[in-house]
Amino acid sequence: MFEFMTVRELYEMVMSGSHVELDTMEYVQLQGWIRTNRSSGKLGFIELNDGTYFRNVQLVYVHELKNFGEVEKYPTGAAVTVTGRFKLTPEGKQPFEIAVTEMVLEGDCDRDYPLQKKRHSFEYLREIAHLRPRANTFYAIFRLRSVLSMAIHEFFQDQGFVYVHTPIITGNDGEGAGEMFKATIRDDANYEEDFFGKEAFLTVTGQLHVEAFAMAFRDVYTFGPAFRAENSNTSRHASEFWMIEPEIAFADLDDNMNLIEDMVKYCITYVLENAPEEMKFFNSMIDKGCIERITKVRDSEFKRMTYTEAVELLEKADVKFENKVFWGMDLNSEHERYICEQVVNGPVFLIDYPKEIKAFYMRVNDDNKTVAACDLLVPGVGELVGGSQREERYDVLDQRMSELNMGKENLQWYMDLRRYGGCKHAGFGLGFDRLLMYMTGMQNIRDVEPFPRTPRNLEF
Amino acid sequence: MFEFMTVRELYEMVMSGSHVELDTMEYVQLQGWIRTNRSSGKLGFIELNDGTYFRNVQLVYVHELKNFGEVEKYPTGAAVTVTGRFKLTPEGKQPFEIAVTEMVLEGDCDRDYPLQKKRHSFEYLREIAHLRPRANTFYAIFRLRSVLSMAIHEFFQDQGFVYVHTPIITGNDGEGAGEMFKATIRDDANYEEDFFGKEAFLTVTGQLHVEAFAMAFRDVYTFGPAFRAENSNTSRHASEFWMIEPEIAFADLDDNMNLIEDMVKYCITYVLENAPEEMKFFNSMIDKGCIERITKVRDSEFKRMTYTEAVELLEKADVKFENKVFWGMDLNSEHERYICEQVVNGPVFLIDYPKEIKAFYMRVNDDNKTVAACDLLVPGVGELVGGSQREERYDVLDQRMSELNMGKENLQWYMDLRRYGGCKHAGFGLGFDRLLMYMTGMQNIRDVEPFPRTPRNLEF
Repeated sequence: MFEFMTVRELYEMVMSGSHVELDTMEYVQLQGWIRTNRSSGKLGFIELNDGTYFRNVQLVYVHELKNFGEVEKYPTGAAVTVTGRFKLTPEGKQPFEIAVTEMVLEGDCDRDYPLQKKRHSFEYLREIAHLRPRANTFYAIFRLRSVLSMAIHEFFQDQGFVYVHTPIITGNDGEGAGEMFKATIRDDANYEEDFFGKEAFLTVTGQLHVEAFAMAFRDVYTFGPAFRAENSNTSRHASEFWMIEPEIAFADLDDNMNLIEDMVKYCITYVLENAPEEMKFFNSMIDKGCIERITKVRDSEFKRMTYTEAVELLEKADVKFENKVFWGMDLNSEHERYICEQVVNGPVFLIDYPKEIKAFYMRVNDDNKTVAACDLLVPGVGELVGGSQREERYDVLDQRMSELNMGKENLQWYMDLRRYGGCKHAGFGLGFDRLLMYMTGMQNIRDVEPFPRTPRNLEF
Repeated sequence: MFEFMTVRELYEMVMSGSHVELDTMEYVQLQGWIRTNRSSGKLGFIELNDGTYFRNVQLVYVHELKNFGEVEKYPTGAAVTVTGRFKLTPEGKQPFEIAVTEMVLEGDCDRDYPLQKKRHSFEYLREIAHLRPRANTFYAIFRLRSVLSMAIHEFFQDQGFVYVHTPIITGNDGEGAGEMFKATIRDDANYEEDFFGKEAFLTVTGQLHVEAFAMAFRDVYTFGPAFRAENSNTSRHASEFWMIEPEIAFADLDDNMNLIEDMVKYCITYVLENAPEEMKFFNSMIDKGCIERITKVRDSEFKRMTYTEAVELLEKADVKFENKVFWGMDLNSEHERYICEQVVNGPVFLIDYPKEIKAFYMRVNDDNKTVAACDLLVPGVGELVGGSQREERYDVLDQRMSELNMGKENLQWYMDLRRYGGCKHAGFGLGFDRLLMYMTGMQNIRDVEPFPRTPRNLEF
């Protein structure tokens, strides 16, 4: 009897040392894709990957195989079904191999296959986004993306948070940023005759909507796509990205920071436990020491410092910054990294920012100059998470919106949440793609998204 | 010492009978929203809900309470913090109550609160989408939505499927259906000068993109939003909805149907176990017997029948259908329900549909007339899931696309998956909102989505 197995199952069996199972399962069948194939004419070796595990399995085939001459010519990329004898090889590079007894070609691969065994640049691989998940780096990143998604869901669901699908198409033009895509069925901008009878946009945040759900379920979170029609070609911006936006009721800024800290630490532990092969790969090939880097963050206490203290420290610092520091400014990356890497030497929340540089919904502090915001800075990256306590006082919110000349018509429902049992609450936003970059040391957001969307780039 | 507790924690403690904990925790603190408040002037009762559990907790307050006069007037909808003595009430309607010792108003509620204690129509509640999650039916449906989302993720992740975020903005105009939203930053339809330098749409399916990932990871799935700019106002269509699209490599139509059957059964078991209070509510208030209905489906073997057999049975049926039956037609709901409810009396897959009525990517059968498609029909609803084996033969796919006059330029990458180790594979699409409707008996898709989008409806 032959048994269909996956490469993951084989490795897990060998690593757990369950030899009893191995003995009863001498012959196995596998299906997968050829990564490399080399033959001496008498003896051949195939590295097979079946998509279930980061590592390949070695297939050995000999001249006696009935279709040896064909198998020798199976190219990189081809899909095959293979039957063979399982053999432990404790002295080999791999812990086991398969001695092939039968091999069937399931899908051939044209000889112009762009993923030959050599090192390709990430730029080149972006041009073949439909094939690059088969290349090691992208294979690792996209599995990690899946594992990290599950970490997020488990973290929140285990604590009773309710997952909310906030809408993608929205009538609110965000925070007035103006850099939004429109969703339309017309060619003439006649929005009154458009699908929704008014101008419609792709969301930049689900926060306002999810606040309504926090007032029903207490603890809620979103996890979905968001959009920015920003015409900037940096390595950290994509036009489409995934965001996580938790919102907690009966909670203040401290509760919010505790939640952020727990979440970041949970995610780090989760990926180290659930994607060890992938993390080893990033640690050795992409960002030497990234495992140590994130482990250190997981084991740190996250410090807290006011914006005002940070500005004082920066002003006193014996460093020449490109941008001069003054109270009221939006700190630049150089400042954030100085605080985080030179002063604190670990993760730190900056809190209580000047209200002028923060969003309208953040709660105004008693000094009437700052708001109860928190940005989490981490070494090597700078800002990773941004959050705040929300303004729950109707009149204060109303006045802030007036100061900022915001149209209130589309947001009356949001303001009304304050009139109907609105309580103290807080929340934050986490860019999922950036968290993935942070974990792995990947430098370009285009290389952590399956099919990235950026200005003038929509090939797939 | 007072301990902050949630209503869920209290109920779970009482139901599990862990009285030891109860004894050491005589006093508790809760935070939540008042559902009802009635007072005799000497004695008052508040039904409090804190968002963590479907059921309320009863608070009892007496004239001796220092702010009795104020508490008496706390309105429905107000947010409060309450401290009190926990008391088991085995003879009462509720298993326990809280004798209030202190109560603080956290957020008042205006007297024009639209959610007073009376029955509101679903139509009315749609107009206050920001408040309706506080009404029982919507409270139940949106928690179930979260629980069912987690069921989907756990089902696939436990089997090693990789979750893929397929893109929302796409250059492919779907299956040529033409009913897509455009994503643009322009007012003049000059797409060459638009953000992406070409016409861009909101996706109707992630399938084509996720197929590329199945050829790397073998088993993959999507779970994200999709869009239809269809100008139809039915109870089953929304312009924005969430879809699940698994794709499995080295798999045929049978494997696909096994996966669908497993998934549907898993989801049913999961919601019955993880949202029992909510399911009890639907069973008694929305769809009498829905628990029995879905339990029966879970315990059924899903039958399989060809389209051709179904047409023969329909032609022979002693029933007058509104639409005449003939081979080659797209079956109507009346036909699907007849097969499912009268003939099979249980879930049934119809397979091997005429190729003319199915999508271009479905695998052509040897008869050259039908394709390897499968639609799952369930009693009471009709079609719940649609799937197929995919055409993995380049030349056959190419010819199908030519027959249908499809532009190939934007899909060359998709076709190329067949040239580069493309193997037998299959997949399906499940409308998440419809699954939720099916589970609960909710009749309108507008009532299972947090902020539904339909023609001329974008109020929030």
